[in-house]
Amino acid sequence: MDTIFTTERVKPLLARVREFVETQLIPLEDGFSHNKLGDLIPILDQKRQQVKAAGLWGLHLSAEEQGHGLTLCEFGQISEVLAYAPFFGHYVFGCQAPDIGNTELLNKFASDELKECYLKPLMAGDIRSCFSMTEPEFAGSNPTRMATLAVREGDEYVINGRKWFTSSADGAAFAVVMAVTNPDAAPHQRASMIIVPTDTPGFTIERNIPVFGEAGEGWFSHSEVTYTNCRVPISNVIAGEGMGFRLAQERLGPGRVHHCMRWIGNAEKALDLLCKRAATREIEDGVMLGEKQFIQDFISESRAEIDACRLYVLNTAYMIDTVGVSNVREAVSGIKFYVANAFLRVLDRAIQVHGALGVTDDTVLSAMYRHERGARIWDGADEVHKQNLAISILKKYGLDIKQKAKELRQFRQMMAAEKTIGAE
Amino acid sequence: MDTIFTTERVKPLLARVREFVETQLIPLEDGFSHNKLGDLIPILDQKRQQVKAAGLWGLHLSAEEQGHGLTLCEFGQISEVLAYAPFFGHYVFGCQAPDIGNTELLNKFASDELKECYLKPLMAGDIRSCFSMTEPEFAGSNPTRMATLAVREGDEYVINGRKWFTSSADGAAFAVVMAVTNPDAAPHQRASMIIVPTDTPGFTIERNIPVFGEAGEGWFSHSEVTYTNCRVPISNVIAGEGMGFRLAQERLGPGRVHHCMRWIGNAEKALDLLCKRAATREIEDGVMLGEKQFIQDFISESRAEIDACRLYVLNTAYMIDTVGVSNVREAVSGIKFYVANAFLRVLDRAIQVHGALGVTDDTVLSAMYRHERGARIWDGADEVHKQNLAISILKKYGLDIKQKAKELRQFRQMMAAEKTIGAE
Amino acid sequence: MDTIFTTERVKPLLARVREFVETQLIPLEDGFSHNKLGDLIPILDQKRQQVKAAGLWGLHLSAEEQGHGLTLCEFGQISEVLAYAPFFGHYVFGCQAPDIGNTELLNKFASDELKECYLKPLMAGDIRSCFSMTEPEFAGSNPTRMATLAVREGDEYVINGRKWFTSSADGAAFAVVMAVTNPDAAPHQRASMIIVPTDTPGFTIERNIPVFGEAGEGWFSHSEVTYTNCRVPISNVIAGEGMGFRLAQERLGPGRVHHCMRWIGNAEKALDLLCKRAATREIEDGVMLGEKQFIQDFISESRAEIDACRLYVLNTAYMIDTVGVSNVREAVSGIKFYVANAFLRVLDRAIQVHGALGVTDDTVLSAMYRHERGARIWDGADEVHKQNLAISILKKYGLDIKQKAKELRQFRQMMAAEKTIGAE
Amino acid sequence: MDTIFTTERVKPLLARVREFVETQLIPLEDGFSHNKLGDLIPILDQKRQQVKAAGLWGLHLSAEEQGHGLTLCEFGQISEVLAYAPFFGHYVFGCQAPDIGNTELLNKFASDELKECYLKPLMAGDIRSCFSMTEPEFAGSNPTRMATLAVREGDEYVINGRKWFTSSADGAAFAVVMAVTNPDAAPHQRASMIIVPTDTPGFTIERNIPVFGEAGEGWFSHSEVTYTNCRVPISNVIAGEGMGFRLAQERLGPGRVHHCMRWIGNAEKALDLLCKRAATREIEDGVMLGEKQFIQDFISESRAEIDACRLYVLNTAYMIDTVGVSNVREAVSGIKFYVANAFLRVLDRAIQVHGALGVTDDTVLSAMYRHERGARIWDGADEVHKQNLAISILKKYGLDIKQKAKELRQFRQMMAAEKTIGAE
Repeated sequence: MDTIFTTERVKPLLARVREFVETQLIPLEDGFSHNKLGDLIPILDQKRQQVKAAGLWGLHLSAEEQGHGLTLCEFGQISEVLAYAPFFGHYVFGCQAPDIGNTELLNKFASDELKECYLKPLMAGDIRSCFSMTEPEFAGSNPTRMATLAVREGDEYVINGRKWFTSSADGAAFAVVMAVTNPDAAPHQRASMIIVPTDTPGFTIERNIPVFGEAGEGWFSHSEVTYTNCRVPISNVIAGEGMGFRLAQERLGPGRVHHCMRWIGNAEKALDLLCKRAATREIEDGVMLGEKQFIQDFISESRAEIDACRLYVLNTAYMIDTVGVSNVREAVSGIKFYVANAFLRVLDRAIQVHGALGVTDDTVLSAMYRHERGARIWDGADEVHKQNLAISILKKYGLDIKQKAKELRQFRQMMAAEKTIGAE
Repeated sequence: MDTIFTTERVKPLLARVREFVETQLIPLEDGFSHNKLGDLIPILDQKRQQVKAAGLWGLHLSAEEQGHGLTLCEFGQISEVLAYAPFFGHYVFGCQAPDIGNTELLNKFASDELKECYLKPLMAGDIRSCFSMTEPEFAGSNPTRMATLAVREGDEYVINGRKWFTSSADGAAFAVVMAVTNPDAAPHQRASMIIVPTDTPGFTIERNIPVFGEAGEGWFSHSEVTYTNCRVPISNVIAGEGMGFRLAQERLGPGRVHHCMRWIGNAEKALDLLCKRAATREIEDGVMLGEKQFIQDFISESRAEIDACRLYVLNTAYMIDTVGVSNVREAVSGIKFYVANAFLRVLDRAIQVHGALGVTDDTVLSAMYRHERGARIWDGADEVHKQNLAISILKKYGLDIKQKAKELRQFRQMMAAEKTIGAE
Repeated sequence: MDTIFTTERVKPLLARVREFVETQLIPLEDGFSHNKLGDLIPILDQKRQQVKAAGLWGLHLSAEEQGHGLTLCEFGQISEVLAYAPFFGHYVFGCQAPDIGNTELLNKFASDELKECYLKPLMAGDIRSCFSMTEPEFAGSNPTRMATLAVREGDEYVINGRKWFTSSADGAAFAVVMAVTNPDAAPHQRASMIIVPTDTPGFTIERNIPVFGEAGEGWFSHSEVTYTNCRVPISNVIAGEGMGFRLAQERLGPGRVHHCMRWIGNAEKALDLLCKRAATREIEDGVMLGEKQFIQDFISESRAEIDACRLYVLNTAYMIDTVGVSNVREAVSGIKFYVANAFLRVLDRAIQVHGALGVTDDTVLSAMYRHERGARIWDGADEVHKQNLAISILKKYGLDIKQKAKELRQFRQMMAAEKTIGAE
Repeated sequence: MDTIFTTERVKPLLARVREFVETQLIPLEDGFSHNKLGDLIPILDQKRQQVKAAGLWGLHLSAEEQGHGLTLCEFGQISEVLAYAPFFGHYVFGCQAPDIGNTELLNKFASDELKECYLKPLMAGDIRSCFSMTEPEFAGSNPTRMATLAVREGDEYVINGRKWFTSSADGAAFAVVMAVTNPDAAPHQRASMIIVPTDTPGFTIERNIPVFGEAGEGWFSHSEVTYTNCRVPISNVIAGEGMGFRLAQERLGPGRVHHCMRWIGNAEKALDLLCKRAATREIEDGVMLGEKQFIQDFISESRAEIDACRLYVLNTAYMIDTVGVSNVREAVSGIKFYVANAFLRVLDRAIQVHGALGVTDDTVLSAMYRHERGARIWDGADEVHKQNLAISILKKYGLDIKQKAKELRQFRQMMAAEKTIGAE
C-alpha cells in the first residue's frame, strides 16, 4: 500500500533495501529447517559487508552519526521491509535490537568517553551489546521493582543481581544494566543504567533460556545472567545516578515503534506466504485453496488489519518526529498492543492455511510464532498498555486513577505497618 | 488524535465546525427520547440558516461549485466532526446522504439542463433527493441483477418496478432510479440511471420501512417505492444509456469513504459517552466504573481501533485524491468492512458500559445502533467486500478466480439449457 | 440435538408444546411488522385458553401447585421450545417473566394470606405482576445500594422511592418492591421485599421506558415507577424484614437459568431463519447464499455454540435440582454471561445473512435484538458475573479478594471520615 | 465441575487415576525444560508397570478385551484426567494415540491372525504402532486424493509412496498404511488399510519432522516416511480391499472424541497453572495478579468455555454410545473445531498471564502449544469441519450442496477434457 508517509527521500532507499532483501536474504530461508539459526551468523556477517559496500549500513543513524538522517517515520518504513526477511533483515543491515536501542541511548546520553569506547564499535557492527533490565522475580511491567543493586565503593560500583531475558547477551561485548543505586530515593529515582563489559569478573550467562523449545545462540538468544560482585568504574553510569527509569522511558518509546514496524513487516511476510499457498495449493481437482471463502476471509481481514496498523504506527512515528514522544504516549501504548495482536492473528491465519506444513519448520511461519509470541508480553504486556492508555484518557474526564492508587498504596503500607506492630 | 492529514487549510474549518456542533447541535440531543426525529427537522432547518450565514454550507462542494474546494481527505475530517452529532450534523451542514452522493453524480455526469433543474436547488438545500437502486427480490450485492425496467416509448421512458431502501424518499423532490434499459446488453451495460421527479404519476411510496422498530419520516427514513408506468423524458438519463453500473461504481467509491468517516465520528461520540459514564458512575462508595479494568479494556481497544481506522480511511481518501479511485479499489473495500465492524464494536461497548441506561433511548447510543447496524450491510455487505478484496489480491498471485467463476456461470447456463431441452 | 437430559416424562410434553408453538404461535409472526406487540395481547389471551384446555398451562409449577412437577432441568427444555416463538411462547403458556419468578418467590416465602390474595390469581393468569428492584441512580449490579425507603408507621409501611426497569408494570395488579426497611443493619440485611398493589395511592408509572426505540405497552414494557408515600400493611412483607437481599438471590438463581433457556430457544429460532434464508436466497443465477463459506461459517459456529450452551445450562439446572443452587453459584454465573453472548452472536449472524431485510421489522430478528440486547446487562452485567466467578475460583487458590476489598472499603471510609474531620 | 455423565462405575476409577496422575506424573514436569521428552521414556515405562500393577492399564479396552468395558463417554472422563499430565498421562496408562485408534481398528476389523500377531502385543504395551495416511502433496482434508500405491503381485502387495505426519513411527513395530489398491474404483473405494511392519525392507523414516522447533523422538515425534517397494502379504489388509476410506471414518469418529477430551484436560491444566500464577504473583506491594480484572476475565471466560466444551463432548460421546457414530456426525464435526479453538484460547491466556515465563520452557505451557497448535488442523482442519457441518444442516433445508458440487466436478472434468482435445 502506498501511504502519505513515503517521502521522496525514502522512496529510492526503500527500493534498494527491498531488492537486497529479496535477492540476498529471503533465499536464505530455503534451508531454514535444516540449520540452527546460530549457524547462519557467519553468512549473515558476509551479507553485512555487502550492505556496507552498498552504503546501506545503519539506516537508523542520524546525519551527525554519519547516517542517512532519516526520521523515525522514514526509518520505520525501512524497518518494515527488513522484516520481510524476519530473522536476517535487521541484523544484516545493522539495526537489530537490542543494539539499535543501545545506540540511540548512548548517542543521546553517554559521556564522550563511553561513546568512544562502546558506541563507536557498536555502530560499526564490530561488537554487539545487550540490555539487562527484567528480573525473574519481579513483574517486568513495573520497572520500579527491582532487586539488582549497584553499591558504590570508591570509584567503582559493585553490582549484584539476577536478570533474565537479557536478549543477545550471548556473544555481546557489553551489557547496559539497570540497577538500584539509590535505594532510599523516590521509586522512580532509585535505579541507574550502567555499562558492564561482559568480560567483567562475576558476569555469568547462566543459560540461554529455552523459548518455545529453542534456546538459540549468539544474537538469536535470550540469556539469564547473574552479576556477582561485578566491579565497574562509576564513570560507566549513563547520564547520571538515578536516571535509570527516565532513560528506560526514553529507550522504550521509539523502541516500541521499532517493534511495531518489524511486526508489520513480519505480518506482510506471513500474508505473502499465505497468499502464495492459497493460490497454488490444489484441494480438489482444479480447485485452489484460495477459491474458498474461509481463506478469502483470512486474506481480507489480514490485508485490512496490516494496512490500518501500518498507518497507525507511521502516524505515531510522525508525531514523535514532529511533537516529541512525550506528547504521544497514548499512541505509543496504543500501537504496542494493537499491532502485536494484529500481527499474531495474521501469523496464525498463515499457519492455518498451510495446514500440517504450517506447524512444521519447513516454512518460517512457526519460527516466527515462537520468536514473536512474546510480542504481546515484552516492552509491556497488552494488559499494562491498555490500563495505562485508559487511565490517561480517563484523567481528561476528571477521574484521576493514579492519584487514587497512590492513596491506596499508602493505606496498604499503613496496614502492613500495623500488622507488624500488632505482631510484636 | 492529530494526524498528518490535517492541512493548514482544513484546521480552522475543523475548529469552526466543531464549535458549531458542540454548541448548537449536541444540545439538541437532550430531548432525544421524547421526540420523534422527524419532529426535529424544523429546528434543524433553522440551524441550516445559521450554517449558511457562517459560510459553512456544503463543505463537500468543489471550488467551481462555489464550495471550499476541499479534497476528499480534508472533507473526510470535517465529516467526522459532523458525526459527533450523529443525527443532525450532516443534515444541518447540507452534506447528508443520499444528497451528497447525488450531488457529486449530477455534477460530474448530468447534462447542463438536468443540473439547472435538479442539481442547483439540491446544492442550495431547497430540495432533497433519493437514490433508488436496491430491490427486495435481489441481493443488493449484485447490481447486475435487477427487475426494474425502463422501456423507451417515443421520447419517454416508461418505468416499472419495485425498489426498497430508497433512503429519504419521503419528502424528496426527485429520485435517481437505476433501471434496466438495455436488457440484451452485457450484464454490466444493461442498466441506466434516470431522474424521476417524485410527483410523477405512478411513483408511490408504499411505506417507510420499519428498521429496528422505527419507520421514521422525512429525511430519517428508508422507503419502499413502486414505479408503475412512470413516464419521464429520455433526457432524464444521466450520462447515457447503459452507464448505470459504471455510475454506481463512481458513486459508491467516495460514498464509502463518506460512510466510513461518519462512522469514525459516531464511534468517537460513543467513546466520549462511554468515558463520561466511566468517569462519573459510582459503583461502590468512592469507586468509579472507570477504575475497573473491564471498562479500561473497552476504552483502550476502542481508542486504538478508532485511531487506526481513521488513518486507514484518510489515507484511502488521500490516495483517491492523488491517484484516483480506480487505483485504490482494494483499500476502499478494506475500509468499508473494517471500519463498519470497528464502529459497531465501539458502539456496543458504550451501550454495555451504560448498563440498563444503554438500551434505553435516554442516550443516543441505542438509536445510533438502530440506524447504523446496517453499516455492515449496505453499500456491500462485509462478506462481499472481503471476497472482492481477496479475489483482487489473489489475482496478483496468479489465481484468477473471476475467470473461473465466469466459466462456471457458462457451465450453469449450459446445464440449465440442457435441462430445459430434456424437459421438452 | 438430543441430549442426555431429555427424560421420558418430558419427551411427550416437549412434542405437544412444540406442535402448539409451531401451529398456533409462529404463524402470528406473519403480521409482525404491522402490529404493535401490545395489540396482539387479546389474541394471545385467546391462545392461553387453548393452552389451558390442553392441560399445558403453567408447566413450571410444582405438583403441589397443581402443576406437572417438572424439574428445573426438564422445564428448561420446555422453555427453549416456547422461545421458538420469541414474543408469544412464554406468555401464552403462563410462564412469562417476571410472573414466573414472583410465583416461585411467593410460593416459597409468602404467608398463606398473601398466597391466597396474590399468588392464586397470578398462577391462574387472571392477573399479572411486576418486580421493582433496580433504581436509576444506582448500579443494578450492587443490590445493597438502594435509596427506596419503607418506613414503618403503625401497622403500615410508607414507601418512597424511584425504580426503573420494573418490567411489565403496565397493567400489573401488584408489584414486589425491594425497599430499605432497616437502614442501620449490615448492608445485606437492610432491604425487604414488600407487595404493593398498583392501585395503591402514590404508585405512579412515570413512563414506559423506550428501549431501542420502543416503549411498548402492557406485558411488553419496562416502566419507570415512583412510590410516593405508598402505604401498605406490614403483613405485605415477604418472609420478614431484612430478607430482601436473600430473597433476591433465591429469585435470581433459577431466574438466570430461565433466561438462558429462553435465549437458547431464541438462538435456535434465529439460526432456523438464517438457514431458511441461506437455503433459498439466490445471489447469482443458480447459486444460493448457503453455498458461500462465509455463511457456512456462520451456521457451523452457531450450531456448535448453541449446542454447547444448551448442555451447559441443562447441566447447571440438573445440578440445581440435585445439589441445590447454593452449590452451583459458579455455574450460574458462567451460563449467564456465556449464553447471553453466544445468543447475541447467533442473532447478529442471522441479521447479517438477511441483508437489508435483517434490519427491517419484516422478520422477528431485529425485534429480538432490541428486546434482548439487555441480556448482557440485566440480572448482572457480563462484567459482574465474570468478576464474581473469577473471585470464587481464585479463593480456592488461596487468594481472598473479597476480604481484601472489605479492608479497602474500611480504609476508604476512614479516609472519607478524616477528610470530613479535616474539613471541619 | 460435576456433570450428569459421571456414572457410579467411573467415579472411583476417576479418583484413582487422578491420584496417580497427581502424585506420580505431574511431579515429572519439574525437570521439564532440562530434558528432551524422549529421555523421559524409560521413566514413563517404569510408571507403566505401576499402572498395570494397580489394574489401571488400558482403561479404554472393552470387557471382551479384558478391559473395564467403559463406555466412550465414561472413558472420555478418564482421558480428561490423564491429560492433566499433558505429555505423560495417556502414554503411561497405555491409551495414547495413535495406538488407541489402531487398537480399536484392529479389534473391530482385523482377522484373527492379525489380531494375534499385532493387536495382542499392542494392547499389552509391548510394542507401539503408527498410522500412515497423510501425504505431503495432498490436502489431508480430502482422503480420496492420495498417491501411495499398493500393487498386488501374487500374494503380496508392493507398496510405494511418501507419507508424513506418521506420528510416533520412530520406534513403532508396525504401521497401518492407507494406500490405493483399486485405482479404477469409485473415489471412496480406491484405498485400503494395510499393516506394514517397520522392519520391512523399503520402509524408511526420512526424518522426524521438526514441529514448532522440535523434531522429537520415539513416541514424541511425527515422521516423514517413504515406502519403496515394501512387500507385505495380502493378508495384511484390514477388513478387505477398498475399505480404507470407510475404516478411516470409523477410526476418526471416536478419535475426535478422544482428541477433544484430551484437549479439555489440557485446558484444565493450563487454567490451573493460570490460576496458581494469578493467586501468587505479586505485581505491586501486596497486590496479586489475580486481583486485576484483565486476569479475572481470562479466568472466567476459560472456566465457562471449558465447562461448556466438556458437556458438548461428553454428550456427543454419550450419543455415540447410545445411537451410534453415524447418527452423530454433525456433533462430531462440531466438537472437533469448537473444542480445539476453545482449548487454544485458554492455553494462550495461560501463557499471557505467565508473562515472559510463559514463553519459556520453564513451564509446560509453551510445549503444550507447540504440540497442540495442530489441534485446529489435524483430523480435519476447522474449515473442513465447519463446511461439512453447514452442508449437512442446509441439506435439511432443501439445499443439496454436495449434489451441486458433484455436477460441478463433472463440468470441470469435461472442461479439462475439452482443453486436452483442443490442445491436440
